[in-house]
Amino acid sequence: MNERILELFQQSPEAYVSGEEISRRLNVSRTAIWKHIEELRAAGYEFEAAPRKGYRLVSKPDKWQVTELLQGLRTKVLGQKVHVYGEVDSTQTIAHALVASGAPEGTLVLAEAQTAGRGRMGRAWHSPAGKGIWMSLVLTPRVPVYFLPQLTLLSAVALCRSIQKVCQVDIGIKWPNDLLIKGKKVSGILLESSGEDERLKYVIAGIGISVNLKVEDYPEELRSVATSLAIESGAEIKRETLVQAFLLEFEELYALYLEKGFSPIRLLWEALSVTLKRPIRTHSPSGVIEGIADSLDDSGALTVITGNGEKIKVYSGDIELR
Amino acid sequence: MNERILELFQQSPEAYVSGEEISRRLNVSRTAIWKHIEELRAAGYEFEAAPRKGYRLVSKPDKWQVTELLQGLRTKVLGQKVHVYGEVDSTQTIAHALVASGAPEGTLVLAEAQTAGRGRMGRAWHSPAGKGIWMSLVLTPRVPVYFLPQLTLLSAVALCRSIQKVCQVDIGIKWPNDLLIKGKKVSGILLESSGEDERLKYVIAGIGISVNLKVEDYPEELRSVATSLAIESGAEIKRETLVQAFLLEFEELYALYLEKGFSPIRLLWEALSVTLKRPIRTHSPSGVIEGIADSLDDSGALTVITGNGEKIKVYSGDIELR
Repeated sequence: MNERILELFQQSPEAYVSGEEISRRLNVSRTAIWKHIEELRAAGYEFEAAPRKGYRLVSKPDKWQVTELLQGLRTKVLGQKVHVYGEVDSTQTIAHALVASGAPEGTLVLAEAQTAGRGRMGRAWHSPAGKGIWMSLVLTPRVPVYFLPQLTLLSAVALCRSIQKVCQVDIGIKWPNDLLIKGKKVSGILLESSGEDERLKYVIAGIGISVNLKVEDYPEELRSVATSLAIESGAEIKRETLVQAFLLEFEELYALYLEKGFSPIRLLWEALSVTLKRPIRTHSPSGVIEGIADSLDDSGALTVITGNGEKIKVYSGDIELR
Repeated sequence: MNERILELFQQSPEAYVSGEEISRRLNVSRTAIWKHIEELRAAGYEFEAAPRKGYRLVSKPDKWQVTELLQGLRTKVLGQKVHVYGEVDSTQTIAHALVASGAPEGTLVLAEAQTAGRGRMGRAWHSPAGKGIWMSLVLTPRVPVYFLPQLTLLSAVALCRSIQKVCQVDIGIKWPNDLLIKGKKVSGILLESSGEDERLKYVIAGIGISVNLKVEDYPEELRSVATSLAIESGAEIKRETLVQAFLLEFEELYALYLEKGFSPIRLLWEALSVTLKRPIRTHSPSGVIEGIADSLDDSGALTVITGNGEKIKVYSGDIELR
């Protein structure tokens, strides 16, 4: 029924279609129409409703343009195999299954919407249809598990730099790999890895970027902590362009890393950090740590200098900027 | 049919049963009997065959005595939940599935036989029925992924020390975690891990110990490189006793590690190593490395000093003792 309603609107683009007319032509009740319009709204269609005029279809949800994405992609490996889905529970789950059935390095999973997007520390990630980039990238780096934290930081650098190239926002990295604009989260990365003894078997980088969400697309409780590129830059961003920029940036940094090691990546991370030299608080197994985030070491750990001058290394977890 | 044949032998333990009698009582051909006896042999039953006398059942395959195992187990967590199987493809595969359905830390998977036991570097592991300990242990250590190589080394120390306590063999550790007796492999460990960013989600330690295999239980091509505790100590070992000793040793070292860090574990590893101060050869992405294995660092890497005095760190892979 939703499809038949959409057809009606597409027959008269830009115009209002009255509830009465829909009701008559499709032979359904006004209440049923209202219910279907709400379903379509949840799927990313935007309608304007005006008294006595009816409904007008304002915009359709963005759909991944795969041909366009691939044509403009300047990478050698990353993203050269793309799997595109409508609504999925999580692109991570799909990518794990693809790896199990032999998907090669660079395989990319894109979804319009996620019903159970995963964030850091077991948190949910809000991933409405067509408004963001919800993707997973398969990597099989030939580095020891020991170096995984460096890949986490590299991912953040690649994502931050590609966003800077595509839109005008003042974006920075909160340790280890959250991206913030004016203190609000705009993008997150979750690296799920699989290792065998000291060897890394594969890594799946789950990346969520809130691209074209409007303030009203966020649940009330997220509005003070989350934002989107469109909200902050004042302009809609073409998702394909950002994916292309990210994959290219990642591939270049990854090659640099494999050749030169972590030093150049650390310099870039430090330059983009909103964490270093700032007071932070974090919880460790031995209690709360408060101090100034001082530096990053080769293991990806954050060195924090506490009030009494003690240096403490923070290897994992969440930090709070104070 | 195999079961009916076993019944016949159990009716007259120790005695020979002639092929003719089996053939008559079970109404099958002599060729069919020979085929069934071979199947039973593959499943761990040992038969003696004598001309004109027939077959005698010499021994039945060992079966896991779970009640006995649990009664003698002095751990708090490790092995307190045991899942026992007959023949499985790999205990690792089962343990992964158990973790996915919520199995807690310490969950142990035991199998009589594995048809596709996994070793390091994608190699197969020979796991015949009832002759060895083929098991997987679920761990959820709250340490960063960064420390995983230390757990690999800790596992080798725990296994080596528990074997020393249970039987008289001159056993040592080849970097990172193979156990050798007189240069032949007797036990292997494979740590499969799953991480999320810098955090370790879980580790499944797959452990294979060749306990009571006889020389003839090994395929010809393995006899020069593999051995068993029974072959080397000259006595059969009760598998339950060794599992109990291993779990206790692991739990104690694990607690020590979580409290005091890697230093005490490194000292124990070094004391048991057959690698340090010896000439070794290994393959790295940049070519063959030859030199003297000098020391172990905090990352679990082996420092190798080459002929021209250069120090090279080996993070992963296989080494050859020269």
